[in-house]
Amino acid sequence: MSIDSWFASMAAAEPEPPRVFHFSECLSIISALPPADVISAMADGFIAFSRGLVSVAPIQTLGQPPLAHFVGHPDAQACVKSAYVNGGSVFVAKVAAGGGGLNSGLVLVFSQTTFAPRAVFLDGGFLTELRTAAAGALSAQHFAPADLSTIAVIGCGVQARWQLRLLASVVSCRRVLSWARRPEQMHALVAELRRDGWASEAAPSLEAACADAQLLITVTPAREPLIQLQWLNRIAEAASGGRRDVLINAIGADAPGKQELDTALVAAASLCVADSRAQCFERGELQHAIRAGLIQSDAVVEFGAWLDGPRVRPRGLVIFDSTGVAVQDAKIAELALEQASAPARSDSKL
Amino acid sequence: MSIDSWFASMAAAEPEPPRVFHFSECLSIISALPPADVISAMADGFIAFSRGLVSVAPIQTLGQPPLAHFVGHPDAQACVKSAYVNGGSVFVAKVAAGGGGLNSGLVLVFSQTTFAPRAVFLDGGFLTELRTAAAGALSAQHFAPADLSTIAVIGCGVQARWQLRLLASVVSCRRVLSWARRPEQMHALVAELRRDGWASEAAPSLEAACADAQLLITVTPAREPLIQLQWLNRIAEAASGGRRDVLINAIGADAPGKQELDTALVAAASLCVADSRAQCFERGELQHAIRAGLIQSDAVVEFGAWLDGPRVRPRGLVIFDSTGVAVQDAKIAELALEQASAPARSDSKL
Repeated sequence: MSIDSWFASMAAAEPEPPRVFHFSECLSIISALPPADVISAMADGFIAFSRGLVSVAPIQTLGQPPLAHFVGHPDAQACVKSAYVNGGSVFVAKVAAGGGGLNSGLVLVFSQTTFAPRAVFLDGGFLTELRTAAAGALSAQHFAPADLSTIAVIGCGVQARWQLRLLASVVSCRRVLSWARRPEQMHALVAELRRDGWASEAAPSLEAACADAQLLITVTPAREPLIQLQWLNRIAEAASGGRRDVLINAIGADAPGKQELDTALVAAASLCVADSRAQCFERGELQHAIRAGLIQSDAVVEFGAWLDGPRVRPRGLVIFDSTGVAVQDAKIAELALEQASAPARSDSKL
Repeated sequence: MSIDSWFASMAAAEPEPPRVFHFSECLSIISALPPADVISAMADGFIAFSRGLVSVAPIQTLGQPPLAHFVGHPDAQACVKSAYVNGGSVFVAKVAAGGGGLNSGLVLVFSQTTFAPRAVFLDGGFLTELRTAAAGALSAQHFAPADLSTIAVIGCGVQARWQLRLLASVVSCRRVLSWARRPEQMHALVAELRRDGWASEAAPSLEAACADAQLLITVTPAREPLIQLQWLNRIAEAASGGRRDVLINAIGADAPGKQELDTALVAAASLCVADSRAQCFERGELQHAIRAGLIQSDAVVEFGAWLDGPRVRPRGLVIFDSTGVAVQDAKIAELALEQASAPARSDSKL
């Protein structure tokens, strides 16, 4: 066999191709996934991660300094996140990219035994949206006040919708105030939510959106603090030792330089929870308060460790910092692959 | 429009799907690529990289410490490499995985404007094999002795075949000595090469393989030095200031801990060329001699800078350290995408 025939033999010995799930198939899979299963998979993932049972590679961030901006938008970025459960059957790499209102991505599943790709999800970034929202819902499940009566969502883009969609599966509160920098975005979300049965209102101002909410969800690409401690009645009261409980799910900040909360607000929290301590200190909402010395890294609890422990929520203000950990991608990809292979289920609510 | 109808509208607004090239299509594309075009694209890529015109993300290495081993093989690893030409139309992320004789991978091309995937090459790692071999051929084009009469290839796996395939397009020498730790692998390659018209022999020993070669190609997964300075006649002579010219293309070492050459041999080179200085110091053949203080980092020339300069080859021993730079993946992916869109060409020699 010559090298040329060797080349031909390679062609003949075609590896078993991965399953390629196109966008519409990904949506079908996603809409068939019961929210409770997704949220539960996130809990399993966070616990395994905090136990050190998961390998997570450092994130590749493209389109942002120190690398060059993408030509499409100066705020755009693409993140490559890779992870696997140690000793598991697969490893997962995913690309989520977006900016200027466009979001995209795909998720890759490889065998840990043959190293060959087993599945390619051309999901347009929706699996990332889903797992991010599921982490927010999991946080609300554990940290939201029991008497939750008002939710505020700051930022009215795609992830705001996902957050509320998953949240609805874990809390009964349906009153939501929305705020966005661009009024047309805000009003579009308000109207959507009303038609979906929410008691939905546009907030007259950002301050008003936050003033009476017991659960704040921040989902903006902000790079400077939007939310101040002093003009949030309930939060200020919670932070000053009052008995009110407030939860902030800080979702937006996921890269160096991003910030949605004033550092004084972060410093006033009874409990800061990080999806990944290492990631949050480098690229999460907590990066600024840590760098300023306003909170001690030792005082930050990792979500998986909290879930794995006695689970006692302190009174007052809890801040959950979500940067998106690759174990979430590994878990959602496994779940999607299972769902793709499963017979149709009737208990989905997504 | 409710959130549910919003979800439905997302499904309706399906993004333009990426082109998915299955393995056989990738092979067709690869075999249609003229080697000269591939080698030239690598030169362009290295030059742009060394000029600082390319964004390259830090490599993700999975399956190796500090992360857990894959279940399939303790030596297995997967590397995620991402890069883009600054201001270009696309960015590229690729996964190359392998170990225990199995190789795999895929290459992803995304738009820098819409951030959506444009192409998925399910190439089984062949585009990585090709671009790696093209870098070796480019090195030979510039650094191989003019009177090259014997090539030695150390390691007889898949990449050995690719190296010789591309090398044949830039040198006329067809005498090759092969050596591998496993005799059956060595004899298989020797026979293949004979049938392909090479004057091909199995080396009686590793020393013998190297003793008279003027071009050594090392393509093993070794983690300890295989090749010693003192028992290589020509190399020793070249290193001692004799007028003989020798080139070593050190391909195998591409991760921390990997090593094929004795550090004394590296220290004796007239010129060390790194595909990426940063990568080679951390994970290439040069990592050991640098760490031992046997060579100075300032003395190592980056391949792109050399190609961009006056191009004067010193006499004696030249070592080219190839770790595989993500710009090579970006370049080969662009070329593959062009080829996939081009009418059939008749000048291919792959």
